[in-house]
Amino acid sequence: MPAGSIVLLAITMTATYQDDPSTPRSLATQMARIVMKFGGTSMAGIERIRSVAARVKREVEAGNQVAVVVSAMAGETDRLVGFCREASSLYDPREYDVVVSAGEQITSGLLAIALQAAGVKARSWMGWQLPIHTDDAFAKARIGTIDTAALDASLNAGEVAVIPGFQGIADDAHGGRGRVTTLGRGGSDTSAVAVAAAMKADRCDIYTDVDGVYTTDPRIVPRARKLAKVTYEEMLELASVGAKVLQTRSVGLAMKEQVRVQVLSSFTGEDAPMADTLPGTMIVGEEEIEDVERQLITGIAHDKNEAKITLISVPDKPGAVAAIFEPLAAANINVDMIIQNIAHNHGSTDVTFTVPSADLARSLESLNQGREAIGFSELVHDTRVAKISVVGVGMRSHAGVASTMFTTLGARGINIQAISTSEIKVSVLIHEDETELAVRVLHTAYGLDAVDAAA
Amino acid sequence: MPAGSIVLLAITMTATYQDDPSTPRSLATQMARIVMKFGGTSMAGIERIRSVAARVKREVEAGNQVAVVVSAMAGETDRLVGFCREASSLYDPREYDVVVSAGEQITSGLLAIALQAAGVKARSWMGWQLPIHTDDAFAKARIGTIDTAALDASLNAGEVAVIPGFQGIADDAHGGRGRVTTLGRGGSDTSAVAVAAAMKADRCDIYTDVDGVYTTDPRIVPRARKLAKVTYEEMLELASVGAKVLQTRSVGLAMKEQVRVQVLSSFTGEDAPMADTLPGTMIVGEEEIEDVERQLITGIAHDKNEAKITLISVPDKPGAVAAIFEPLAAANINVDMIIQNIAHNHGSTDVTFTVPSADLARSLESLNQGREAIGFSELVHDTRVAKISVVGVGMRSHAGVASTMFTTLGARGINIQAISTSEIKVSVLIHEDETELAVRVLHTAYGLDAVDAAA
Repeated sequence: MPAGSIVLLAITMTATYQDDPSTPRSLATQMARIVMKFGGTSMAGIERIRSVAARVKREVEAGNQVAVVVSAMAGETDRLVGFCREASSLYDPREYDVVVSAGEQITSGLLAIALQAAGVKARSWMGWQLPIHTDDAFAKARIGTIDTAALDASLNAGEVAVIPGFQGIADDAHGGRGRVTTLGRGGSDTSAVAVAAAMKADRCDIYTDVDGVYTTDPRIVPRARKLAKVTYEEMLELASVGAKVLQTRSVGLAMKEQVRVQVLSSFTGEDAPMADTLPGTMIVGEEEIEDVERQLITGIAHDKNEAKITLISVPDKPGAVAAIFEPLAAANINVDMIIQNIAHNHGSTDVTFTVPSADLARSLESLNQGREAIGFSELVHDTRVAKISVVGVGMRSHAGVASTMFTTLGARGINIQAISTSEIKVSVLIHEDETELAVRVLHTAYGLDAVDAAA
Repeated sequence: MPAGSIVLLAITMTATYQDDPSTPRSLATQMARIVMKFGGTSMAGIERIRSVAARVKREVEAGNQVAVVVSAMAGETDRLVGFCREASSLYDPREYDVVVSAGEQITSGLLAIALQAAGVKARSWMGWQLPIHTDDAFAKARIGTIDTAALDASLNAGEVAVIPGFQGIADDAHGGRGRVTTLGRGGSDTSAVAVAAAMKADRCDIYTDVDGVYTTDPRIVPRARKLAKVTYEEMLELASVGAKVLQTRSVGLAMKEQVRVQVLSSFTGEDAPMADTLPGTMIVGEEEIEDVERQLITGIAHDKNEAKITLISVPDKPGAVAAIFEPLAAANINVDMIIQNIAHNHGSTDVTFTVPSADLARSLESLNQGREAIGFSELVHDTRVAKISVVGVGMRSHAGVASTMFTTLGARGINIQAISTSEIKVSVLIHEDETELAVRVLHTAYGLDAVDAAA
């Protein structure tokens, strides 16, 4: 599990899932369309690509139509990005896209070769070949539509379609056949979900270096449990507070398009169970989670990449707060938790909020430039903070989730510096040093600990 | 100069060339369209790509419209080919093309970025974007037509077009937007000449790791001279007997399309003369070479990559020779010099011929299989042979070239094992150990030695 991974309520409910008639994947004999997505670690070298081919072959032999979305070999995209930066710090994103999209092009061709060597009919489809249409925001393009005529024909002919993630094609303002685009880092997850939506796949399996989504970071809480299912909304909240299992954009797209996404490990051996027997975590709509499975809280996330900024003695008058946040929004800085303290005696107030640590310097610069307009007396900041979030769709219908959190942390003497809530999440800001303690006591307080530590 | 490089008559006739009104490049103020082609060594790393950008910028600032054709970074194509072979010894050439074409895609984008950083408007055009149409002989495709509408518009808008060599696009039998093809190793020279022909370029400059075409290998003959001009036909003969300056296919295409090709060094510094002041060797039609420049012999080539095969006591009857060579032709083995000795007393004859050393084993196998049909008594071979060729369009109108060759070699005691001739070439087969001696004495005999050794 990478740093900051998080997640929800466990229940290794294989039996329940397999017997669920509403789940098409439970019928092993029924042909399904699936997308399998493999990341850079899985594509790092021919031996691993051969393992991927073996996994794909099993799905094909089970009677499924399969499209595979691949990342570049681990390290390759960094190498290509490095070339671009070395060539010019102000590189043309259109040319950057030509360069960096080559990484996935290479692995697509190689996986097609490895599949054919394994006796599986396969061919690669570049983004411009399908095509995968995107807007023209080069280097951070968004997928529009995906033409499926060629893809459908290929799948129906029994071929595995191998598709490079992270790339598409935008119309060329100057004529010609369009220009290559990339979706930004981590875009291969989004490619996979978009392809799954376009081809009306029954399932989109994302093979990662973790084996699923957990109730919390297992390195902090050894009794954390892998979740069988999690809703899109929960996953979005978890992703946005530090889970690195899936790219946030891909989860949002999956929710919008109602694509059933499964997170599972790419490192399980060839004798691992088939993907449709649920070795990982399914990310699904709320309606797919039975009442019996539903927990109050599904997971606990932590995020140390926030910084706290406090403006001392801001005049307590209309427009003061806007003067603070408008310039930050204009600079595309994502402000998260905001607290405005009660007014001082002198008609002024303190305003505290958090920003991503990476944006701290730019935030301070922006605020100092606006000092006169805002009228604060002092600007202080603190990077030694952590945000702890409890997430769960179950809390919608249950009061007391927040108060349990405050009571539990207070009993351990953990000071809460800020609070924010959404419909399915309560977050608090605490001192960074207390992160692990807070996660552990909350995991126990919400009844998430595995009964058997070996589970 | 790499091993086996060769070539023609010197005359550093810069003055004559520059004053020649029939040569458009002699007018520095006249806008020209040129293609510049850079090989893998020139593209190996960002520093070198920046040097290439600087060279291109000088041509643009001189008022020229420029298309640049680039190879992959040195070593990159080998890396990608290695991946394909590792994935499967019987790789699908269509997928191989997807993989290996990525190398030139990367350098195209990077050169476009480097040009923009140098203040030059530039954009890359992949083979599928222009497009460069090829047949569907994947991994060894031949260029058909190149659409120039987009390219012309780009050039006329003052952009440098950066085009990856070695790649194109073939129609996709299964629909879609076509499939990537590659032209086979060394195909970037051919791409450059084809682009030059399509855009009606005034000149195609091929930047290489040699600085031109020489009367012979300068490592054997220090007084060898760089040639100012050489005809297509001479270059073809020289290339086919071992010169590695240009890919043979690109010379043939240049001759067919009447593209003026210049070979020049990519390692000359930035203060080197402009390409149109003739630092290299121009490969042109015969009509572009003035009588005063014309020499009897333009160059002397040597080739140690031949093997001699002799069949002893072949029945001297109709059909015997066909029984030898038909199977070799069917196996795509290129037989070169052939000698049939006078018949023995017993109605049989010895047949000697040469094949490329790389094909020797296959040739012997084929001949042994056909032993009964051919009826020879013994099969002997010798790889310690070298072919020495004197080449020059001037020999068409002059007798005595061959006899000078035989006399000169005979005077040094060099035994001639076989002879073959074409309209502009005489080749002899000798013992490999006598290669250097033969080249030196012939270079002197035909008056090719530079008057001043420092020239």
